[in-house]
Amino acid sequence: MNKHVGNSWEQRDMESVFHGFTDLETLNKNGPVVLTHGEGIHVFDVHGKSYMDANSGLWNNVAGFNHPGLIEAICEQARRFPGYHAFFGRVADTTVALSEKLVKLSPFERGKVYYTNSGSEANDTVVKMLWMLHRRNGQPQRRKIITRVNAYHGVTVATASMTGKAYNAEFGLPLPGFIHADCPHYWRFAKPGESELEFSQRLARNLEELIIKEGADTIAGMFCEPVQGAGGVIPPSEGYFQAIRPILRKYGIPLIADEVITGFGRTGEMWGSVKYDVQPDAIVASKCITAGYFPMGAVILGPDLCDALTRVSEEAEEFPHGFTAGGNPLGSAVALKALDILETEGLLENVRRVSPRFLAGLNSLAEHKYAGEARGVGLMGAVELVADKKTKAPLDGKLQVSERIANKALQKGLICRPLGQAIVLGPPFIITEAQIDEMFDILRETMAEVFADVGL
Amino acid sequence: MNKHVGNSWEQRDMESVFHGFTDLETLNKNGPVVLTHGEGIHVFDVHGKSYMDANSGLWNNVAGFNHPGLIEAICEQARRFPGYHAFFGRVADTTVALSEKLVKLSPFERGKVYYTNSGSEANDTVVKMLWMLHRRNGQPQRRKIITRVNAYHGVTVATASMTGKAYNAEFGLPLPGFIHADCPHYWRFAKPGESELEFSQRLARNLEELIIKEGADTIAGMFCEPVQGAGGVIPPSEGYFQAIRPILRKYGIPLIADEVITGFGRTGEMWGSVKYDVQPDAIVASKCITAGYFPMGAVILGPDLCDALTRVSEEAEEFPHGFTAGGNPLGSAVALKALDILETEGLLENVRRVSPRFLAGLNSLAEHKYAGEARGVGLMGAVELVADKKTKAPLDGKLQVSERIANKALQKGLICRPLGQAIVLGPPFIITEAQIDEMFDILRETMAEVFADVGL
Repeated sequence: MNKHVGNSWEQRDMESVFHGFTDLETLNKNGPVVLTHGEGIHVFDVHGKSYMDANSGLWNNVAGFNHPGLIEAICEQARRFPGYHAFFGRVADTTVALSEKLVKLSPFERGKVYYTNSGSEANDTVVKMLWMLHRRNGQPQRRKIITRVNAYHGVTVATASMTGKAYNAEFGLPLPGFIHADCPHYWRFAKPGESELEFSQRLARNLEELIIKEGADTIAGMFCEPVQGAGGVIPPSEGYFQAIRPILRKYGIPLIADEVITGFGRTGEMWGSVKYDVQPDAIVASKCITAGYFPMGAVILGPDLCDALTRVSEEAEEFPHGFTAGGNPLGSAVALKALDILETEGLLENVRRVSPRFLAGLNSLAEHKYAGEARGVGLMGAVELVADKKTKAPLDGKLQVSERIANKALQKGLICRPLGQAIVLGPPFIITEAQIDEMFDILRETMAEVFADVGL
Repeated sequence: MNKHVGNSWEQRDMESVFHGFTDLETLNKNGPVVLTHGEGIHVFDVHGKSYMDANSGLWNNVAGFNHPGLIEAICEQARRFPGYHAFFGRVADTTVALSEKLVKLSPFERGKVYYTNSGSEANDTVVKMLWMLHRRNGQPQRRKIITRVNAYHGVTVATASMTGKAYNAEFGLPLPGFIHADCPHYWRFAKPGESELEFSQRLARNLEELIIKEGADTIAGMFCEPVQGAGGVIPPSEGYFQAIRPILRKYGIPLIADEVITGFGRTGEMWGSVKYDVQPDAIVASKCITAGYFPMGAVILGPDLCDALTRVSEEAEEFPHGFTAGGNPLGSAVALKALDILETEGLLENVRRVSPRFLAGLNSLAEHKYAGEARGVGLMGAVELVADKKTKAPLDGKLQVSERIANKALQKGLICRPLGQAIVLGPPFIITEAQIDEMFDILRETMAEVFADVGL
């Protein structure tokens, strides 16, 4: 089927949509996949073809693509109060209710919530919060932001600078003052003979040396994803957060947990911070907060940071920052419902129940000759492909094995995600064990075909 | 009525919501206004009190707060396909249709659309686009961004740096390389005896000198709001864009029109760029694109920038940038409907029809002893308060006259916005002449009372 003839959806797309995060050679060759609707964990294109989405959209559509309760919540609130802002001391009732709920769900005893439209905006906001706080506290030089290699914190100029991925060099990023510490990926970065705990302790020592080298009083804060997500699903090495937490406390450096991916159940706990005992000063949330049914980001400030920031904002008369649609009534109603569903419809429970099956599936893929590591937690996981299991040498990048696997899986009706040399999976929280088996069956078959295709 | 007793909405807000762009002294004294619903151009708080919103929310709720067609569009699309992303060459059908529509509505012969969740994200995106473009074209030093004093382009670290407002000093912004040229506000910045055209020409000469001083080959682009919005509604001086446009062309500097406020009819034309013959290389849109019913931003790339950016992205394999909810199916359906309503329900027509009444009302306020200037276009306007009409000396900032007017108007059930020493108005596009008269009656009464209160 030539998709490009006449006035097809695909042709219309190619003439009017500028695509981001899209391999353009593939797009120019195969055309886009234009989608019309979803059903459970499947989405459908304009030709009626269905795809099982093993990535929940982008980690976020965890309740599936046509959840009746979420749809009804959208309609109900749209009829009552669809749009308003949260500037000038005005706020929608649903936004107040959501804020209470988020503080209650958070690991904090108390706190306050600040709203944005995305995780990018939320991380960007916290950078500004920290800069304002330190300036007002007489430490205007405290501006450097520490994140980690393979971190993903967003795509604004500042949050792309925080992101530790090579592609940001295209933009001349990171900006000065955005520093990347070690990635806690034991399998890839451990020294020969180093135990996992020793590895974590070495990374903590490195972090302290970095802080001292840069000057502790020049560091504004450190951001960590409890599990690195877009970096390729990298759970922290054993003891990692326990090792770095005291160092950050010692130098008075706030720790922000970027829970855009891990928040609301992905790891099997409500928060990745709880799962790994991160003890953050603030949490950045997004994605699952609305189950992917509305753009929303939130900064949940823990007690200390909340009090400090309130104090300096009162000194300044205001916190001079805000997004037009941040904390709007419709998004807040959707989030309230999504969080309710998570608890009352057993979604979080299901993550815990089916996670062993999911992780077993990953491990079975890791038996493949060219699979170096299977890693994961809850319902997020990855299989890292290598040229040599022993040396862990990566495959020749030109072979584009992970991209080929994703493209061939797509043909077979399965959506998975190539990230570097890894295949990443993050299925919806409503997935069944039978669907998990189906997902791995397709992947296993696809991998076999692709490795045969490239002559390996 | 003490709003703070018991478990009131106001108390719940104060304990869980962190407010941005909110005068905290007023908030701590009066509490928040917690809103439940809207009707036409009015919103209602939890106590049943109604407020006429003379600012359309934040410029965006132009079709009112309970438009049946928009509500139905939300429900219909939510039932069909509420949420998906636009990464990896996948895209919703509604997003394709919206992109076609936006290109068609734009002043460009052809082009492509890139989606974000806000105007901030859209401007931030264009900065990255320009940086990538120049780097790939062998000019990695081309990084400086020119905007203007009193510009407002957003609140991310980069777009706050582009914003020419004093409060960003709180964050230690702007970052280096973000340069602010003159504000084209004739009334405030003209030299004695200088005609409006002479003023525009002087600003153009200043701009050229700035470009030469900085080094033309270090400038990535210039961003302009056709009418400065959050700077206090400042239409360009006569001949301004005609004077600066050739200079930017001469030095090969792309011009981006930030139409977040002016786009889709606010000036009485579909685009401020058309109204003032800006001839931009790209347009940044947001706000009215969904009539305030959904968070969305869009970059509409004109032909040259689109082709250049496509070329360098293909060289790089991809444009490595994207927001999870950017270009999602639900927002796209809402935007399609909002743009349809603008044309088919006579909203744009109504802006043109009632604008003379609105501008006459502004001018009548300008007769006040302490009103220095009334300015506006279409349905956006401001009255600038001064201590002395002749010298244009500002009022004593400590008197907080504009804030007092806004607070007192709120008590009387009218929402208007203090911006510096100006009162800013931007009513919904559905406002009637009778409602315009009512708005100015309340404002006139409020101003009289406030000036009496402060002893002027």
